Amino acid sequence: MLIELSHLRDQVDVLDKEILELVSRRLALVQKITELKNHSEVPFYVREREDFVVSSLREEAVLKNISPDLIEDILRRIFRESYARSGAASFKCFNPLLRKIVVVGGGGKLGGLFVKHFRLSGYDVEVIEREDWSTSREVLSKAGMVLVAVPIHKTLEVIETLNYLPDDCLLADVTSIKSKPLESMLKHHKGPVVGLHPMFGSPISSLTKQVIVYCDGRVPESYAWLLDQFRFWGITLQQCNALEHDKAMTLIQALRHFTSFVYGLHLAQENPDLSDLIELSSPIYRLELVMVGRLFAQDASLYGDIILSSNENKEMIKRFHTRFSEAIKLLDENDKQGFVDAFENVATWFGRFSERFMKESQNLLFQSQDASYRNKSDK
Amino acid sequence: MLIELSHLRDQVDVLDKEILELVSRRLALVQKITELKNHSEVPFYVREREDFVVSSLREEAVLKNISPDLIEDILRRIFRESYARSGAASFKCFNPLLRKIVVVGGGGKLGGLFVKHFRLSGYDVEVIEREDWSTSREVLSKAGMVLVAVPIHKTLEVIETLNYLPDDCLLADVTSIKSKPLESMLKHHKGPVVGLHPMFGSPISSLTKQVIVYCDGRVPESYAWLLDQFRFWGITLQQCNALEHDKAMTLIQALRHFTSFVYGLHLAQENPDLSDLIELSSPIYRLELVMVGRLFAQDASLYGDIILSSNENKEMIKRFHTRFSEAIKLLDENDKQGFVDAFENVATWFGRFSERFMKESQNLLFQSQDASYRNKSDK
Repeated sequence: MLIELSHLRDQVDVLDKEILELVSRRLALVQKITELKNHSEVPFYVREREDFVVSSLREEAVLKNISPDLIEDILRRIFRESYARSGAASFKCFNPLLRKIVVVGGGGKLGGLFVKHFRLSGYDVEVIEREDWSTSREVLSKAGMVLVAVPIHKTLEVIETLNYLPDDCLLADVTSIKSKPLESMLKHHKGPVVGLHPMFGSPISSLTKQVIVYCDGRVPESYAWLLDQFRFWGITLQQCNALEHDKAMTLIQALRHFTSFVYGLHLAQENPDLSDLIELSSPIYRLELVMVGRLFAQDASLYGDIILSSNENKEMIKRFHTRFSEAIKLLDENDKQGFVDAFENVATWFGRFSERFMKESQNLLFQSQDASYRNKSDK
Repeated sequence: MLIELSHLRDQVDVLDKEILELVSRRLALVQKITELKNHSEVPFYVREREDFVVSSLREEAVLKNISPDLIEDILRRIFRESYARSGAASFKCFNPLLRKIVVVGGGGKLGGLFVKHFRLSGYDVEVIEREDWSTSREVLSKAGMVLVAVPIHKTLEVIETLNYLPDDCLLADVTSIKSKPLESMLKHHKGPVVGLHPMFGSPISSLTKQVIVYCDGRVPESYAWLLDQFRFWGITLQQCNALEHDKAMTLIQALRHFTSFVYGLHLAQENPDLSDLIELSSPIYRLELVMVGRLFAQDASLYGDIILSSNENKEMIKRFHTRFSEAIKLLDENDKQGFVDAFENVATWFGRFSERFMKESQNLLFQSQDASYRNKSDK
């Protein structure tokens, strides 16, 4: 029996190598396609094509009595790899006649990502840091576009100095709040203005499928090329009113980061043995630990600036805190029924989304368990 | 050029079908291996074998200049599928001479999972629900093992009635708290006792790699067979002192579920448009939304019982709330430096884990983005 087992295992090992070979050939083919696209009008990432590949292979899987989700997961993982590899590709240029693009703070992680992609798209890009602020006036006065990518607390003071740009120069920023920067850009610059908020951190390997929220400022037709350029990079654009954006970010960023921060404070003071805690964790709690812990591998100052950037943030955090206090009353009164009623009201509010999230999260939890094994074998 | 493009795409489509074919053959091979194992001493899931397959294919990938993480992600996804498919397999029986296994509450989701696996392993299993409580005395008085799998708030009263089991009968429970049930089992039953806490929800497709925490009660040698049986099912066992277990669960379960509950309350009262919120989400916030939303697709009463099950839970939640209040002072005083200092203390506490979690979460965030696309194409 053991002989038979090891014989079957050998066959599996052979299959695995064949799978690896096919995957590597697929990556090479897509590489070719990417190179072909770089010199064409065909955008880098075509949603319809991806959906077609997925749905047709899902159908094939069903015919073979294989889970379609399995094959879709594998496909999407390979897609992602292809996008990551295409990082070094060159891109079609949507505004070849544009004068110099000046990225203020282009030495930073986020700014650097844009510098890299603009250059890969054939633009003439110059980076300005605070230290060369004095000498930068001449460069800026000839710019075709200026992108402000400095830390959030520096954004306004930098924008205020940009009051001498050419009238046809496009002025844009990538700050995670939008109302004040947009207002200031419109005030100090007469020409085209657009506010951008890239909804991603710097450790990404490709811009494909990443989201950028943009808030129209002035003369949209004069930066249509920029949005086309972004789409060609594979970016998903979301148009949003600046005030609504800032309102949403009080939840999406400020409250989220602050509660993670407080949870970290709490853990550090409770001081459990992290290894033991991980051993005893449910997949859900493990995910929480990972998501909270990751915050503290990052820049304290950046998160402090985001949270402290507006009173709306503080008010949102305080409203959450008040609701927490109210909910604690249910505990003090041992009010099981009150808990169930409140719970079911929220369930009603989530509506169809809770079921959808349940389904979506299930797969994520499996993946996080897989990841934890990957992590173990790393050590 | 477009002709060349569509030609290349056709080649990709052919490759994808070949990949699907190989994956399906791999699943079939592993199915054979599983069947072979069912009648052998070889455990169902062999960690070393899995790690060997992964590490050797990672090496192959490096030689081919392919990301080893890509191939590991694909492998682990296929592994998971194989375990899910093996659900219907039969298992070796580690205690063939055992008298009847009675599962009290075996009609519930969690209890049913154990009933199914015991039966697949050749045990004689009988399920008792509250309604046949009266008629159950005779069955119970002959049982070889009794597993209590009733809702947490019913556990103690059920255990108290089990004071007439045979002295050699093994008494176990699967409650998510352990001190009180264990104490009560030891008090009301003279024979072997073990406390179990399965760290997984019911929607799992396989027990492989799932964690069960166990707390020794009495005569461990008499339930060694049960732990072996669990291991053979692929379960990872964690031994834990009951008090330490309950302490850890105040964090892992009570606080985690309660903060998600409060966040749901908060969202419902803030009442943003969920679709808009998702459109504007960063991957991290989307993950938070999914993990919070999933809670409300589940049983309010179950979560209420878990949270309200002990004063330790309430005290943990209140300590978190107090730290939240303290942290808000930093906001009121606009104390950026205080935030940064506190943040860095926590980073120091996390130590090497924050970097490890950063790495682990990055991949998860990519997967959650992939999942969101899967979700879109569902619609």
